[in-house]
Amino acid sequence: MKLHGACLFAQSGGPTAVINASAFGVLTAALDTPEISNVYAAANGIWGVLNEEIYDINAENSAELALLPGTPAAAFGSCRYKLKQPESNSHEYLQILEIFKKYNIRYFFYNGGNDSMDTCDKISRFFAQNDYECRVIGVPKSIDNDLCGTDHTPGFGSAAKYIAASIAEICLENRVYDSESVIIVETMGRHAGWLAGASALAEISGAAPDLIYLPEVTFDMENFLRDVDSIVNERKRCLVVVSEGIKYADGTFVAETPPLSGDKFGHAQLGGAAATLAAVVKNRICEKTRSIELSLLQRCAAHCISQTDLNEAINVGKFAVEQAVAGESGKMAAIQRASGKDYAAEYALSPLSTAANSEQTVPRQWINAAENYVTQEFINYTLPLIQGEFFRAERGVPRFARLKKIPPRQKIEN
Amino acid sequence: MKLHGACLFAQSGGPTAVINASAFGVLTAALDTPEISNVYAAANGIWGVLNEEIYDINAENSAELALLPGTPAAAFGSCRYKLKQPESNSHEYLQILEIFKKYNIRYFFYNGGNDSMDTCDKISRFFAQNDYECRVIGVPKSIDNDLCGTDHTPGFGSAAKYIAASIAEICLENRVYDSESVIIVETMGRHAGWLAGASALAEISGAAPDLIYLPEVTFDMENFLRDVDSIVNERKRCLVVVSEGIKYADGTFVAETPPLSGDKFGHAQLGGAAATLAAVVKNRICEKTRSIELSLLQRCAAHCISQTDLNEAINVGKFAVEQAVAGESGKMAAIQRASGKDYAAEYALSPLSTAANSEQTVPRQWINAAENYVTQEFINYTLPLIQGEFFRAERGVPRFARLKKIPPRQKIEN
Repeated sequence: MKLHGACLFAQSGGPTAVINASAFGVLTAALDTPEISNVYAAANGIWGVLNEEIYDINAENSAELALLPGTPAAAFGSCRYKLKQPESNSHEYLQILEIFKKYNIRYFFYNGGNDSMDTCDKISRFFAQNDYECRVIGVPKSIDNDLCGTDHTPGFGSAAKYIAASIAEICLENRVYDSESVIIVETMGRHAGWLAGASALAEISGAAPDLIYLPEVTFDMENFLRDVDSIVNERKRCLVVVSEGIKYADGTFVAETPPLSGDKFGHAQLGGAAATLAAVVKNRICEKTRSIELSLLQRCAAHCISQTDLNEAINVGKFAVEQAVAGESGKMAAIQRASGKDYAAEYALSPLSTAANSEQTVPRQWINAAENYVTQEFINYTLPLIQGEFFRAERGVPRFARLKKIPPRQKIEN
Repeated sequence: MKLHGACLFAQSGGPTAVINASAFGVLTAALDTPEISNVYAAANGIWGVLNEEIYDINAENSAELALLPGTPAAAFGSCRYKLKQPESNSHEYLQILEIFKKYNIRYFFYNGGNDSMDTCDKISRFFAQNDYECRVIGVPKSIDNDLCGTDHTPGFGSAAKYIAASIAEICLENRVYDSESVIIVETMGRHAGWLAGASALAEISGAAPDLIYLPEVTFDMENFLRDVDSIVNERKRCLVVVSEGIKYADGTFVAETPPLSGDKFGHAQLGGAAATLAAVVKNRICEKTRSIELSLLQRCAAHCISQTDLNEAINVGKFAVEQAVAGESGKMAAIQRASGKDYAAEYALSPLSTAANSEQTVPRQWINAAENYVTQEFINYTLPLIQGEFFRAERGVPRFARLKKIPPRQKIEN
């Protein structure tokens, strides 16, 4: 049952504000495990494995490793490389196997989203078919919260907190002048509207958006204009939040489609969905309309991390190592909501294939009938995930982990 | 010497994250002053005075007033209304005088930037010429830090802190993938480059921008492209910060000028300076180039306030009241840097006309010779202003002051 050997960790896909908290969870649990001889991290996900760009974590300063939680944006680098099926691409799998054998890697933890869980699943199966004993566990992350098999993904809570706070602040800004004013804010979320929906949490600050549009329902320009017009008439100011992935009935993205041919601002689609819509609203309803893209900050704002999210990101990483050491493999570490009145997270394993092959979107019943806001159920689900403030500053600015990132001795002696 | 009567406070111009901290300073000091009978705040600056839209601060809950520090975006509303000279516009001044007489207002505190200090100055002179005894003190605010007569403006420190933190985080994001990548971030600052320069504080996080362009020096497209190209060649990733107000040698704003005629992305000037430049860089140097506008968040991010800035914003408001009660009038409350090794703020009065008629820009010697970064002197000046973290959250989201905003009895009895 006991498996002795080295451990390899890698990060993949778009990063989050707490992705390195999971790195900390995995790496420190691995460093503390007697069966695990050496602890490595690959540069830029599976790409670093293929290219033997590997860092020796045993050589890192433990005080700096302890700063990984609170350091955003994949400390070891990431990639967006999806492995093909082993049948059509055996040389890459053989290359991976060779590296694993060279370093005697018997534990592999891959931290990422849907595509990364797919990669993880394929590698796990390939090793099994080739009789290479290695325990492979996926560690979830995604600001988009679109992974199936887990109640929510580490990274979502911090992004949701940043969005809720920013929207509340922007809402107050929008009330400053005594004139009609429309602001349209764009969040990430190409297929799932969790991030746009999280803006509704600003209600608690008394500064909520008026309208929220999610990619789970069809976007209709005329309905949208009617909604905005009615809010402007009633309240003078209107704050709209849209997901980058909102689509028309014909399936085209709002962000990619000239809104109205012959429109004075018809070429505004160079920007995203919010810029496109702002141009139309400016032309039709309110001269003082502006768009704001939350852009990269919603996934890297280390100054607005949710402590709950941070803790869970660490814990899910530790849990992955514990389960692998206990003999599990070919699974994803997942978060479950404990039963009971108060929110609590529990950890469990779920099939890699579930996360790899489907997307968790906002349930239709959590979107209101008018399809322009989320329901109380959505708020109840999301609120516990944004609790607790975390901003580690030194001399007024964020203090990030400073890693040595040196290659292992085997690599040097090559 | 003692002057008995009511006090009126109003907010004007673009708000900041700590503008209501000054409101708190003024209002609570006024409430505590025996000579001041009633404390009022005008809605939307001088506009509320002209329209008799006035709130009774004595009727507010003191626990909610105490939450004004930490509430961004002009709690009483703002305006961008600049009074003309009394000679050409006497009816407005007479209207203001009438309201002041009606409420027996003998203390007037106007919180704003250059234009607001100009309004303050004009009202002060008009009252004096018309033998209406009223002590008028300007209270400075500006994220742009462009007011003369004060070492720095309340609001700048928090905006600088938000920018430094955000830039450090974006810098880490820009290093995540192993590919060439350029990010161009735009800060506010139409004539003064303090906000763009503040991004250099991210150096302390080990995640500084590579290039910073300020409006104090002429922007040259060819030099800019050479700078970016050289950084991309050397470091693969390049992070650029530009002030919205950068201008070409002919005086046109980069944001308003098609960068290169016949350019594939020649119509990108619909966005700001960063979007315009990103389109050119994408076309000429690096396909993976994106622009980010920090937009309104840099002036309203209550979740990333500088505690130093917050304290100074309160203190400058209190100081204004103390000085008025002591007999001063027609001046602006200002911040001075105490002599000595460690940073400390002192408060003083300066002429309203100084703030009204000139702009404090970044000294030329604080910009490097290549005109693409700031010097250590700039960093030394700005760093003390961003010290200390402040984010008041309740249930995970910002807790803002909830004011009743009810009109005074005189108004109701009209």
